[in-house]
Amino acid sequence: MKRPFNFSAGPAAIPEEVLQQAADEMLNWGGSGMGVMEMSHRGKEFISIYERAEADLRTLLAVPAHFHILFMQGGGLAENAIVPLNLSKGGTVDFVVTGSWSQKSFKEAGKYARQHLAASGEASGFTSVPDAASWQLSQDAAYVHLCSNETIHGVEFQQLPDLQALGCDAPLVIDFSSNVASRPLDWRRVGLAFGGAQKNIGPAGLTIVIVRDDLLGQALDICPSAFNYKTVADNQSMFNTPPTWGIYMAGLTFQWLLRQTEGDLHGVDAMEARNRAKAELFYQYLDNSQLYLNKVDAAYRSRMNIPFFLRDENRNDAFLAGAKAAGLLQLKGHKSVGGMRASLYNAMPLAGVQALVAYMQEFERTSA
Amino acid sequence: MKRPFNFSAGPAAIPEEVLQQAADEMLNWGGSGMGVMEMSHRGKEFISIYERAEADLRTLLAVPAHFHILFMQGGGLAENAIVPLNLSKGGTVDFVVTGSWSQKSFKEAGKYARQHLAASGEASGFTSVPDAASWQLSQDAAYVHLCSNETIHGVEFQQLPDLQALGCDAPLVIDFSSNVASRPLDWRRVGLAFGGAQKNIGPAGLTIVIVRDDLLGQALDICPSAFNYKTVADNQSMFNTPPTWGIYMAGLTFQWLLRQTEGDLHGVDAMEARNRAKAELFYQYLDNSQLYLNKVDAAYRSRMNIPFFLRDENRNDAFLAGAKAAGLLQLKGHKSVGGMRASLYNAMPLAGVQALVAYMQEFERTSA
Repeated sequence: MKRPFNFSAGPAAIPEEVLQQAADEMLNWGGSGMGVMEMSHRGKEFISIYERAEADLRTLLAVPAHFHILFMQGGGLAENAIVPLNLSKGGTVDFVVTGSWSQKSFKEAGKYARQHLAASGEASGFTSVPDAASWQLSQDAAYVHLCSNETIHGVEFQQLPDLQALGCDAPLVIDFSSNVASRPLDWRRVGLAFGGAQKNIGPAGLTIVIVRDDLLGQALDICPSAFNYKTVADNQSMFNTPPTWGIYMAGLTFQWLLRQTEGDLHGVDAMEARNRAKAELFYQYLDNSQLYLNKVDAAYRSRMNIPFFLRDENRNDAFLAGAKAAGLLQLKGHKSVGGMRASLYNAMPLAGVQALVAYMQEFERTSA
Repeated sequence: MKRPFNFSAGPAAIPEEVLQQAADEMLNWGGSGMGVMEMSHRGKEFISIYERAEADLRTLLAVPAHFHILFMQGGGLAENAIVPLNLSKGGTVDFVVTGSWSQKSFKEAGKYARQHLAASGEASGFTSVPDAASWQLSQDAAYVHLCSNETIHGVEFQQLPDLQALGCDAPLVIDFSSNVASRPLDWRRVGLAFGGAQKNIGPAGLTIVIVRDDLLGQALDICPSAFNYKTVADNQSMFNTPPTWGIYMAGLTFQWLLRQTEGDLHGVDAMEARNRAKAELFYQYLDNSQLYLNKVDAAYRSRMNIPFFLRDENRNDAFLAGAKAAGLLQLKGHKSVGGMRASLYNAMPLAGVQALVAYMQEFERTSA
């Protein structure tokens, strides 16, 4: 049976090959007689799964040796507290607010630090991002926080700011939940990156944290041990029982990503080329349409999450019903923004975007 | 192929029927065209999975209506911080320490509260539990903490203390990670119960918290929002993206548990009868053996986790190698205790214990 195309913003589509392998190994992984969920996290079978997932992620994202990769729990919303518990030292934290997710991060940090709003896209309705040269960075910030891709507002940094060039020595913290592994990442500009796995990597319940070693060991005394980055790092992410199934599924996804090619490109470079092509096709169609509309500044348009609207909102329900009938799932926009949203993560093939555009053309034609 | 018997202490064996159903539905749940990991947690498909899991767990454990069931993340070790963050009000907390797990809970609570050691089994090497009548309970404790089954030391409360009868009005908090759903639970004696799912319920990465409604809304200001019980309760466990796969697998396990019968008994009552029979068979064999030894006070012996030792420890490696060859997996004891450990959770059938005893008899005979 041909599977529908699933445009969910997260939890989101997983490559069919990955799901098939997980199904095949469910009762007996690698001849062990155990499913992955049944293995002690300290046994040699699971340790081999964990070590390969960690190594593959390091290869895939070209993570330098002086960064730790941590597999944690709680998702981005928990990290909104865990990051300041670990890095703020109770001082000032700078925020660049570009949408719902960085807004939530800003708010939560107030429990542990003084938040300083260095820049905000709110005046534009979060359809654009203030140029980095205009950011009002503090002299004494413990770190600067931004969300590299805003899942709800569809705003993405096309490149990360070079804080040092802006005269700021603080480390940059990025929430890359919804664009991790979709494009290369310049680790020279980053102190810590965190993200929930449930968009580009695997199942909900796994959080990836990649942290520069010099940032470990600064946690506030009130930081729960299970969320103290140094404790997690010192215990190879096994201070508490890790989300073993999530690590396994992420590992299968990393293997799948490492196998991908586009021309001469491999891995994340190949995904970037594919993601650029998918996004260009879709934005081009939207911009030339009389019915559909995307409001985001072209310079900051997300390749991952594309919110769009029908100029005639009375047609929304008919649009969604027709899409579902055409095998195009989970296109309803986030309740805070309304309209529609197409999430084009790594697992979405170009054929899925082509099918979506074909449906939208037909819907536009028959709506006229 | 006949599956081996898996005696892991956690993550642990999952019923084969449950694993098979999960494999069968991996690419297409309920005709939706999506796997469970690919569903938005706010879509009607996943909401139906969540609601059934919650309702089935309530039925299974006979949870009264004035308790909330929360699906969280971080496991028991995270709860060691999350419980005092939510319930201690920064005051005094009483601990009954009966092994490694309650010892860890005691230690972590010091970040947020004054710990009072009401009783400890340490003098016995955690092979017994001080009688409740001897506990030194505080006058002003915010709550009293105990671990209803110590996974490492193999010590289990055969009944929960009646704190009110002991002149204490504080709510009882229990860590039931390793005996949840293995026997009925008297909710009149409990204010809050928490447990990681990876022993009797499902995969690692899901934490179950069952809390009496009057205990919600007392969190310290420094409690991360994602771990504030009231916030979690008010958002039907979806303040942050929940561990959707874990909830699904737990839900399948709850359905499996509700289907189990022993004579006239159903669900948890049936499991208790089965668990009692399994444990009795195994302890009886140990006590009559010349080679094997269990050191735990008969009144507090765990039905779930049975540590045992070979009187000749030089035979340990041969024992484990032979067991593995006989299809009896993960019997090595916890490093802090040594020796062996057989975990006999709900998913372990009587046939598994019979096979283990048969192997041990043969090993004893040929070792003599």
